[in-house]
Amino acid sequence: MPDAIALRSPIRDILKPKTVAIIGASRDPSKRGYRAIQALFNQGFAGTIVPINPKETEILGLPCYPNLAAVPHDIDTALVCTPARAAPAVIAECGEKGVKGAVLLAGGFGEASAEGAELEARAIEVAKRYGVRLIGPNTNGIFDAHTGLNLVGWPGIYKGGLGLLSQSGNVAMSMMTASIRTEQAGFTTFIGVGNESDISFDEYLRYFGDDTETRAVIVYAEGFENGAAFVRAAREVTAIKPVVLYKAGRTRQGEGAARSHSGSLAGDYAVGKGVMRQAGIVVVERSDEMFPVAEALSHNAGRAALRIGILSEGGGVISQAADALAERGLQIPLFEPATEAALKLIAPNASQLFNPADYGGATDPHPRYLAPCTRAILADPNIDALLSVGYVGGYQCRNDTDEIREAENQAACEMAAASKEFGKPIIVQNHYAEWNTEAMRIFREAGVVVVRSIEIAAACLAGIEQYNQVLLRKAQTTAVATPRPAAEALAIVAAVRADGRTSLLEPEALRLLAASGVTVPPFAVVSDAAELDRLPAALTGAPAAIKIVSKDILHKSDVGGVRLNLAGAAALAEGVAAMREAVAAHRPDAAIEGVLVTPMAPRGVEIILGVTTDPQYGKVMLFGLGGVFVEVLKDVAFRGLPLARADAEEMLGEIKGRAILDGVRGAAAVDREAIVALMLRLSVIALAHPEIAEIDLNPIIVSAAGATIADARILLG
Amino acid sequence: MPDAIALRSPIRDILKPKTVAIIGASRDPSKRGYRAIQALFNQGFAGTIVPINPKETEILGLPCYPNLAAVPHDIDTALVCTPARAAPAVIAECGEKGVKGAVLLAGGFGEASAEGAELEARAIEVAKRYGVRLIGPNTNGIFDAHTGLNLVGWPGIYKGGLGLLSQSGNVAMSMMTASIRTEQAGFTTFIGVGNESDISFDEYLRYFGDDTETRAVIVYAEGFENGAAFVRAAREVTAIKPVVLYKAGRTRQGEGAARSHSGSLAGDYAVGKGVMRQAGIVVVERSDEMFPVAEALSHNAGRAALRIGILSEGGGVISQAADALAERGLQIPLFEPATEAALKLIAPNASQLFNPADYGGATDPHPRYLAPCTRAILADPNIDALLSVGYVGGYQCRNDTDEIREAENQAACEMAAASKEFGKPIIVQNHYAEWNTEAMRIFREAGVVVVRSIEIAAACLAGIEQYNQVLLRKAQTTAVATPRPAAEALAIVAAVRADGRTSLLEPEALRLLAASGVTVPPFAVVSDAAELDRLPAALTGAPAAIKIVSKDILHKSDVGGVRLNLAGAAALAEGVAAMREAVAAHRPDAAIEGVLVTPMAPRGVEIILGVTTDPQYGKVMLFGLGGVFVEVLKDVAFRGLPLARADAEEMLGEIKGRAILDGVRGAAAVDREAIVALMLRLSVIALAHPEIAEIDLNPIIVSAAGATIADARILLG
Repeated sequence: MPDAIALRSPIRDILKPKTVAIIGASRDPSKRGYRAIQALFNQGFAGTIVPINPKETEILGLPCYPNLAAVPHDIDTALVCTPARAAPAVIAECGEKGVKGAVLLAGGFGEASAEGAELEARAIEVAKRYGVRLIGPNTNGIFDAHTGLNLVGWPGIYKGGLGLLSQSGNVAMSMMTASIRTEQAGFTTFIGVGNESDISFDEYLRYFGDDTETRAVIVYAEGFENGAAFVRAAREVTAIKPVVLYKAGRTRQGEGAARSHSGSLAGDYAVGKGVMRQAGIVVVERSDEMFPVAEALSHNAGRAALRIGILSEGGGVISQAADALAERGLQIPLFEPATEAALKLIAPNASQLFNPADYGGATDPHPRYLAPCTRAILADPNIDALLSVGYVGGYQCRNDTDEIREAENQAACEMAAASKEFGKPIIVQNHYAEWNTEAMRIFREAGVVVVRSIEIAAACLAGIEQYNQVLLRKAQTTAVATPRPAAEALAIVAAVRADGRTSLLEPEALRLLAASGVTVPPFAVVSDAAELDRLPAALTGAPAAIKIVSKDILHKSDVGGVRLNLAGAAALAEGVAAMREAVAAHRPDAAIEGVLVTPMAPRGVEIILGVTTDPQYGKVMLFGLGGVFVEVLKDVAFRGLPLARADAEEMLGEIKGRAILDGVRGAAAVDREAIVALMLRLSVIALAHPEIAEIDLNPIIVSAAGATIADARILLG
Repeated sequence: MPDAIALRSPIRDILKPKTVAIIGASRDPSKRGYRAIQALFNQGFAGTIVPINPKETEILGLPCYPNLAAVPHDIDTALVCTPARAAPAVIAECGEKGVKGAVLLAGGFGEASAEGAELEARAIEVAKRYGVRLIGPNTNGIFDAHTGLNLVGWPGIYKGGLGLLSQSGNVAMSMMTASIRTEQAGFTTFIGVGNESDISFDEYLRYFGDDTETRAVIVYAEGFENGAAFVRAAREVTAIKPVVLYKAGRTRQGEGAARSHSGSLAGDYAVGKGVMRQAGIVVVERSDEMFPVAEALSHNAGRAALRIGILSEGGGVISQAADALAERGLQIPLFEPATEAALKLIAPNASQLFNPADYGGATDPHPRYLAPCTRAILADPNIDALLSVGYVGGYQCRNDTDEIREAENQAACEMAAASKEFGKPIIVQNHYAEWNTEAMRIFREAGVVVVRSIEIAAACLAGIEQYNQVLLRKAQTTAVATPRPAAEALAIVAAVRADGRTSLLEPEALRLLAASGVTVPPFAVVSDAAELDRLPAALTGAPAAIKIVSKDILHKSDVGGVRLNLAGAAALAEGVAAMREAVAAHRPDAAIEGVLVTPMAPRGVEIILGVTTDPQYGKVMLFGLGGVFVEVLKDVAFRGLPLARADAEEMLGEIKGRAILDGVRGAAAVDREAIVALMLRLSVIALAHPEIAEIDLNPIIVSAAGATIADARILLG
């Protein structure tokens, strides 16, 4: 079995080595080459440590070798403490020796300068030649808590079920200290990804996916060398275990130039977040949520946590918990009458038997109430999970008597057992969380997370529920065949290319969409009055909109090139003439292809749909409400392509103004299915045409009767 | 001086008593009447403790008296541990003895039942008769950390500068344990307000305002007996010291029936939050921010914290800090070149000299960099405050050597001194915050807050900046004279009353507004075709809107009673006739007063302004963007009346869609001054007319050219 796993991920041999060489080992306690050996000792590393330094014969009681060649046995992993400039030579030496992986701590490579980048390229070239895998460079190192491979130098790392993948040593360090504080929750492996020169985020993530000891993965990322590869890996790994991600830099979104409306909205963070969520990742927005949410997920993956029962002694915290849960979209449903009756039997003086329940009463309540109350609530079919707020775990701080302590410890055991038995999560929020009582240790060892903050407890439950939805969705997803383009659509693209353009005229865009199965409104392009006379009734029977068609005019309305609401043949003819005049006045140089005539779109809600090409994640779809919603509130959702039906539905539910789709001011709900179908069709078209860089349907008018595309724009790459 | 303060607040004698009677004292260690005495011992209460129990002669070594009359000396404060039903008799006994205040712990009063309410009324009546002040009932008690008056029974309360006013013992308890954890930050006085039978939130808050040892006040409230009185008190107290408030129950807003559009938006929490902010309170939205934000404010009141310098060793946390600050509206400006030069001299290997600064470099940096880097950044005129993220305070955890520890402690001293010298706040975020090192104790003792979470550190800075704005604003505020109503407006109201109505017809509302100095659009009410012919050109020269005027019709558009865009006399006449026909078909019973004719409002942005009467806070003004913004996003701001200019401007800046006022889609910015002037005028009208319960101007069309009221509704109380 270990060999099978090793086959699947070559990283495993590097993280769980039998022998480790410390290149640049030192007798100076201030040097990393000394502290690295000390850290391996302290962490109880079971393998062989081999110091390498041409000037020493012994370091910390270990025989020291002048170079790798001099070592009389195999080396699995090398920790390279020497400066950046030595890297290519050191890697070559590793290669000659058959070392599997080298951890390059030094900075001063591509992240620092052009010379550094060149050095990095040479190091990679050498590594590839010899088949040596590289971790880093510019990394704090790695550790594997289960084998004691502490190559990062931090003291006292706890063993547990969390894999940690971080682009920042500081951020990882912060979670380490949080783990130490709570004593129980700990890690399998930490990997500082550094510059991702060789092994990158996606390969590490797959390693964690395969590693059976890792129950949940935490990722801290500032940017990805290859975001699309990470997303592909995440899609696979999240089917097996939860991945919690904090993506830094979200407030710098929207910078830089953008080519079209959809493009300008594709701020890094908004796109990344949509694509990550689509891949099944639980994205957290606060640094202080990463560790507790991952910890909660590592024990509750695949459980629901939508409908929460709250149990407390006393008020106040109940109200705060209700606020915090509701703000995260979780529910506090009514208990079944049988539950209330059971609670009444257990705690007859309870001040509140309904949800949120307060078992406090006239006199100080007893920890002996806790377990039976917990069981009664978890047994309720309306309840997915329990949030205990207030004192539980800390009664023994408040009244430090043997009786209270024993009763509370017993209650903790029974509550944890009830969570297992019912398969429902329990999160304990506690004012004494830092005291780390025996009861809390019992909770934590049994996988019941104990936290200090009510809001973080609520975030843990929200994370559990979100991952549960991910799994439910994955169970429904079916494979999508690679779409093929329509011949007529290809011909339109070819003609545009032949004309030396990258931007389709609106009639071309509409024809391409129609040829690809999209329902577009009737339209015609006319050049003269005679053609106007020959228009079919579909175009003249109702008020019409007209737009100028010209390769030279990008912003039609700026040059008087759009007129609306022309009712009747006379008004239409007059409008066309007046518009051509206005455009000619503004842009006498512009070549005019004609005038597009189309019926006015029916009344409805303006939405915008677009496909844009993200440099990281490839083609992504944008959905938003049109007009001020998209322009002022940036109220848009993104997902990568191919788009699944569930993705489309999620996007409709993700925007802040979603209630508008259900009808406001007495309007009927819009035809959501028409929007979803159009999104799925656009996804197919964008994938069938690699040459299409952007599609911008803005606005689309949607109502109960369907969706009408009122403007279409297509750009080639 | 103490006497002068006592004169100002009678509560002071109760909180800082020379003698305390424990009524219902007990020898049973499980009883509150025993534990209360023990708590006073443990807290080192310096005054005299007098147990009262007819069955005992001695408790815990103190002489016990059968009743208060038997006590041979004066009693200042009585802690009443006996059950609710005894309250009236006990209070009478207190009154006979001349006790100044009684703390009623028992529940079972108005909060429990109708009988309880009656009991509470009797208790209040007795207390008023004798002049005994009541704290509670239904309270966890009180404590005063400076005198050791621990009447709440919690162990180990720290002395400090925070006043704590809480409707929940649990919530207060949670802040106590947070204070114990950090060891330095502590409290002056805690008051559990309970049912507010006698002394209420506002009187307690004024006590804290007067108490010179209290540097900041924390308030936890679920509801107020008298919200308006609390707001008045808060307005005074926040001029002297910061008040930090968490108001529970915000997710239950918007429940219950509402009378008008403005009314339906006046959800408890939204109104309360607006009114509280207006009074200068720092409102926090998370339970875990209350204590640290108040702590930070207690040391930094009146300092600015808008433009933040970040100092870190290493990245990652820098990015997270930048995210957290930007999300709270704080800025990370560029340093002056001189600052960067100074940083380069101090830390030549620093990886980032610009803001956010990273003094980490190729080798492990030294704590000796910290103080000079801090001084360099605080000296920068672009920087208001410093956020230190990462290790500072915890270097001695990472490398526990004498050298590091001493250097770090020295750095902490110098950083705290620099904060004082420059008068600029420093907040330290630290991965080791729970370790509570000597360096952290130095920080905390010197008023530099140390927290664990980056987001909470950012919230502390945001709170400091917010209170600074409060003080700046208070310095500008001038008194407003009580407005007087216009005679014509009073006549309109009298006529409506005489007609037995509480709702003004639209023409009446417009006339009332016009008589009160509001510019309303030209309008006329016509009954027949002849009157239509006599309309002035102002009403017929441009497309007109017409609306049915009828006492019997509330929702005009539902019965076909609104027609828009009627251009020319013929269209107008036709429209009036058709509309009357349609209305008659829908509502044959309705008495029609006529048809209101008014020019179509010019194009612009729809806003809504309203005045509504809140049961707690009296008349409040609502401002929001009209249409879907207000209906779907509930994007509205509330403030109490009278409205100051700064309030109005703050409301315009508070809504999410505020960018729309600056012009989108190429539109010019709207005339903000016209909106502000209208808000101030509405405030005057609403206050001049106590009989007006609601004003609803919805929509108002605003553009660069001003504001046009397109619909007006006024309701009498």
